[in-house]
Amino acid sequence: MHTDKPRPRVIIVGGGFAGLECARALARAPVDIVLIDRQNHHCFQPLLYQVATAALSPADIAWPIRAILSRQGNLRVVMANVTAVDTAAKVVQADALTLPYDDLVLASGVTHAYFGHDEWADAAPGLKTIEDARHIRARFLLAFERAELAADDAARRKLLTFVVVGGGPTGVEMAGAMAEVAHETLKEDFRRIDPRMSRILLIEAGPRILPALPDNLSGYAKGVLERMGVEVMADTRVTACSRDGVTLGDGTHIDASTIVWAAGVVASPAAQWIGAAHDRAGRILVNTDLSVPGHPDVFVVGDLASVPNVPGIAPAAKQMGGYVGRLIAARVEGRDPPPPFRYKHAGDLAAIGRRAAVVKIGRFELTGFLAWWFWGIAHIYFLIGLRNRFVVAINWLWSWLTFRRGARLISANGE
Amino acid sequence: MHTDKPRPRVIIVGGGFAGLECARALARAPVDIVLIDRQNHHCFQPLLYQVATAALSPADIAWPIRAILSRQGNLRVVMANVTAVDTAAKVVQADALTLPYDDLVLASGVTHAYFGHDEWADAAPGLKTIEDARHIRARFLLAFERAELAADDAARRKLLTFVVVGGGPTGVEMAGAMAEVAHETLKEDFRRIDPRMSRILLIEAGPRILPALPDNLSGYAKGVLERMGVEVMADTRVTACSRDGVTLGDGTHIDASTIVWAAGVVASPAAQWIGAAHDRAGRILVNTDLSVPGHPDVFVVGDLASVPNVPGIAPAAKQMGGYVGRLIAARVEGRDPPPPFRYKHAGDLAAIGRRAAVVKIGRFELTGFLAWWFWGIAHIYFLIGLRNRFVVAINWLWSWLTFRRGARLISANGE
Repeated sequence: MHTDKPRPRVIIVGGGFAGLECARALARAPVDIVLIDRQNHHCFQPLLYQVATAALSPADIAWPIRAILSRQGNLRVVMANVTAVDTAAKVVQADALTLPYDDLVLASGVTHAYFGHDEWADAAPGLKTIEDARHIRARFLLAFERAELAADDAARRKLLTFVVVGGGPTGVEMAGAMAEVAHETLKEDFRRIDPRMSRILLIEAGPRILPALPDNLSGYAKGVLERMGVEVMADTRVTACSRDGVTLGDGTHIDASTIVWAAGVVASPAAQWIGAAHDRAGRILVNTDLSVPGHPDVFVVGDLASVPNVPGIAPAAKQMGGYVGRLIAARVEGRDPPPPFRYKHAGDLAAIGRRAAVVKIGRFELTGFLAWWFWGIAHIYFLIGLRNRFVVAINWLWSWLTFRRGARLISANGE
Repeated sequence: MHTDKPRPRVIIVGGGFAGLECARALARAPVDIVLIDRQNHHCFQPLLYQVATAALSPADIAWPIRAILSRQGNLRVVMANVTAVDTAAKVVQADALTLPYDDLVLASGVTHAYFGHDEWADAAPGLKTIEDARHIRARFLLAFERAELAADDAARRKLLTFVVVGGGPTGVEMAGAMAEVAHETLKEDFRRIDPRMSRILLIEAGPRILPALPDNLSGYAKGVLERMGVEVMADTRVTACSRDGVTLGDGTHIDASTIVWAAGVVASPAAQWIGAAHDRAGRILVNTDLSVPGHPDVFVVGDLASVPNVPGIAPAAKQMGGYVGRLIAARVEGRDPPPPFRYKHAGDLAAIGRRAAVVKIGRFELTGFLAWWFWGIAHIYFLIGLRNRFVVAINWLWSWLTFRRGARLISANGE
């Protein structure tokens, strides 16, 4: 403590990658931090698709925020739902609590968007939270159970048709994992159906899957998926989703029982809380120091920030969070602020099933088996918490060796 | 196949210990088996309390029934809810399916009973399924989150008071684990409350906890629990449960936010399906070969069977299931039936936290640290599935070394 003044209060909204990294960057700063999240856990979103396809348990990729930050004495965690921000009075409203701040860091992220068709949400759940993953897992596994009992061929075919909408990394990883479950994991488990007859469709509106990667890598990914039995449909727009299936741009209807939405995101309502300018997806436009124009005491980090040429991926969120943490620390300690935020792109990678991946780091490109190991090691390395790394590594090794999946539980409230 | 006749059809209702063991005993018999369960997974109930207290993940102690039995060619698994049995037509009604049988094995178990006070169920959830455990886990962990934000001392005290009703093995194990979470796992995670101030009460209506064990072991368990900070109240009857707490026989009211029900069970409604005589808890009275009087083709195994001097524990369920499987196999193969069922009691054991247990096997008694290891090894040994054993062992080792608990997730629908 440098002075007798009360320490500046920093409120961080959101315990994702950006919020956590911001909190850590402030660990030694003379501030009092309140981190607010409506969940009690941080979720390692890049591996959510593995929970949705029963390879990992929720607790393998989620960790209590309190436990992550328990040693940080200048911080307390509040599990509550932020409903409003008063930038004039400088207070955050979270459920019944009114919390004053000197600096506010908004890191509440994004959720899936249905391009104005919110009514598709029930038929085509997205994959952003542990609950989402558990829900998709139950629906996916129940489809096989119901197909086993189906009365006729048409019903059976519909139940065994799985559609993934969106050909980004999440969609590619989801489709690959679904194909493995259907064609390998479950192949001996049923008597009346053969899960290998399942159809898995990956639908992408743009001209190719994995658009962030160069042509050759995206072509490679398509080839691997097709050999795994995934039907990859690029240049294909989905015009309707319902419990009956999807309708495509050319009017074709595909009967399908299970649809996973991996296309498009919309920001959490933070722009409305502070009345800030935002892009079409609701992401808040920020200055080069990630503060909000007109609000030098409000910062936006992670997927919620609209920053040109910065993708919505974990490394970018961490870089923004760390930057704002260092900026606030410098300010309260009277040091010079850091230069404007500059994003360093580490690379792109996506796993395709359990035998292949695509990796691009700078000019370095890698595909196939070696790329899969690189992908696996990189993800385990970044998983928070020693135990999780260890359990995830064992689960992967086990399912890799046996094609089995350990977390194949259907919850009562899965549907 | 011995003859040209169609193979006898055996229906097993329930994929618990008894049902699975019965299926296995019939693996080489010339029969067609249908195993019906409303869940897709077998749950290792003796460790459910570890899921409820965040030490293990649901998938660590549950395993898809299909995966367990996938190699058994004479069996198919149906995930459905049995609603009726017609013993004259010899068919089972399961959701929309009408399934004919030659032999029927009822193994649908028990659930918690509130002694005619079903209205207590909401306030005092029991612990029989994975969903129950997830629900209790969320309620237990949320109590600390809410206490951290509580406006006054009385609310905080109520939120940090946890009551376990029932001093059998489940109640003892639950209370011990709750004390550990409050006093060790969470001790550094909060800023406004000290989880070590939590009250954990174990209430037993009878004169002592662990009534199945001799006096000295039950006294030992009480001493260990008390040193762990659990208030053990024997000879104490609960006369009301609500979201406000519990009322005791002498009129005392204890404010408590979290109540776990570990007292009393009631059978699934199988006795009504077949119109059989049953005891007060709904358990079906059976002949010495576990068949139902008047129905030589209907057998009852596991907790659902009312057999004098046979406790409702996993080894007893397995012995009954195996017995009926062998009996049916002998009958269809034209061999002599086995002699009447005789239960062999292997022993009693209960863990008290992470450092002590009580074990009684015949005349052999063991307490303390060594007993805990014995308890742990016995449970891991019996866990189904190699992977589960391995992951559970690692999780235990990890939380034993660190007092941390990995599965501390609060689900959105936990409350």
